[in-house]
Amino acid sequence: MKRLILALDVYEKETALKVAGKTAEYLWALKINWPLILGSGLGIIGELKKETGLPVIADLKLADIPNTNRLIAGKVFNAGADYIITHGFTGRDSVKAVMELGDVIMVTEMSHPGAREFIQPITDRLVELANELEPFGIIAPATRPERVAYIRRRLNGDIKILTPGVGAQGGSARRVLEAGADYIIVGRSIYTSENPTESAKRFHEEIKG
Amino acid sequence: MKRLILALDVYEKETALKVAGKTAEYLWALKINWPLILGSGLGIIGELKKETGLPVIADLKLADIPNTNRLIAGKVFNAGADYIITHGFTGRDSVKAVMELGDVIMVTEMSHPGAREFIQPITDRLVELANELEPFGIIAPATRPERVAYIRRRLNGDIKILTPGVGAQGGSARRVLEAGADYIIVGRSIYTSENPTESAKRFHEEIKG
Repeated sequence: MKRLILALDVYEKETALKVAGKTAEYLWALKINWPLILGSGLGIIGELKKETGLPVIADLKLADIPNTNRLIAGKVFNAGADYIITHGFTGRDSVKAVMELGDVIMVTEMSHPGAREFIQPITDRLVELANELEPFGIIAPATRPERVAYIRRRLNGDIKILTPGVGAQGGSARRVLEAGADYIIVGRSIYTSENPTESAKRFHEEIKG
Repeated sequence: MKRLILALDVYEKETALKVAGKTAEYLWALKINWPLILGSGLGIIGELKKETGLPVIADLKLADIPNTNRLIAGKVFNAGADYIITHGFTGRDSVKAVMELGDVIMVTEMSHPGAREFIQPITDRLVELANELEPFGIIAPATRPERVAYIRRRLNGDIKILTPGVGAQGGSARRVLEAGADYIIVGRSIYTSENPTESAKRFHEEIKG
């Protein structure tokens, strides 16, 4: 089973397509974010899908009122995105607006230091919100496997846990899977590697155990 | 003094340029958001500035880790945006990453029902964060003038308060200015009007009092 997601945090379409093509056989999905969309336009989603046949996760961190979330999500799902990453902190109506249009991965915790100020203190309530709304998955930090385990114990078992922070940010794929993550998101360690195929393969094999 | 901001929540470049051109003389600034950028590309910012000579506020509701916020903000400031609307919820490092590149308007409270779940309970702390970081301004809801007054009493007097929700959403320009707002954001009541120039003029005159 494939559990590796490539975070394509690159800004040129050509680089994105090249790295995705070279690593696709070891991936479950691709994750793209705003800088790539701003540089390449929404067409990049269809091109990546055509190049690799993989699902595309649009990591938009949507955090607006329901109507604006809906308008953005509509355009991005129409462009072919399979999942949109959406913040839970803007409340259930904002999340539901996106879920009405397609699959959502909800942020319940983030990995940067500033996340400790306002987001981490309400993780429990964001997990409760996920249990109520039942999105496809939630985001939890690979850099803190103990937090992944904490969230896994509280989260409805049908909801997937996706974890960024493996590799360059210091998280270990093995440890975070043992803590209960379903998918591992790796970026720099693959796309800045001299041999992205080999790097992706190594993560894939570490995941298989 | 002009205190009216037009929220260009439209999705076609031609409509945006037309409405902006027809109303510019009564406006302080234009506000655009992701749907327009997705439809038109970042070039729309320069085109709107050329058409009207007005500052452009990019209402991105940025809510990512510092590095991603920085990458998005870099592209959008480079395209000519004068201000970027950024969430405070993701913590001070994420806000600072944007402030290092240009002027920020920080969200301290939102107007939709879901904002009562997680954001409104920490408004006091988000206002403290604004007082510490000193962004150009903050966002507070015109639909709740009592909240604008509450925030104004706690906010450093040099930081501007911008208030969406006047017009179609029911907020009154006069009441929210009396409560302490510096700028009024109006969208639908102007851009869906049969005569946008006349509508903008009416808001401008209501603001002048």
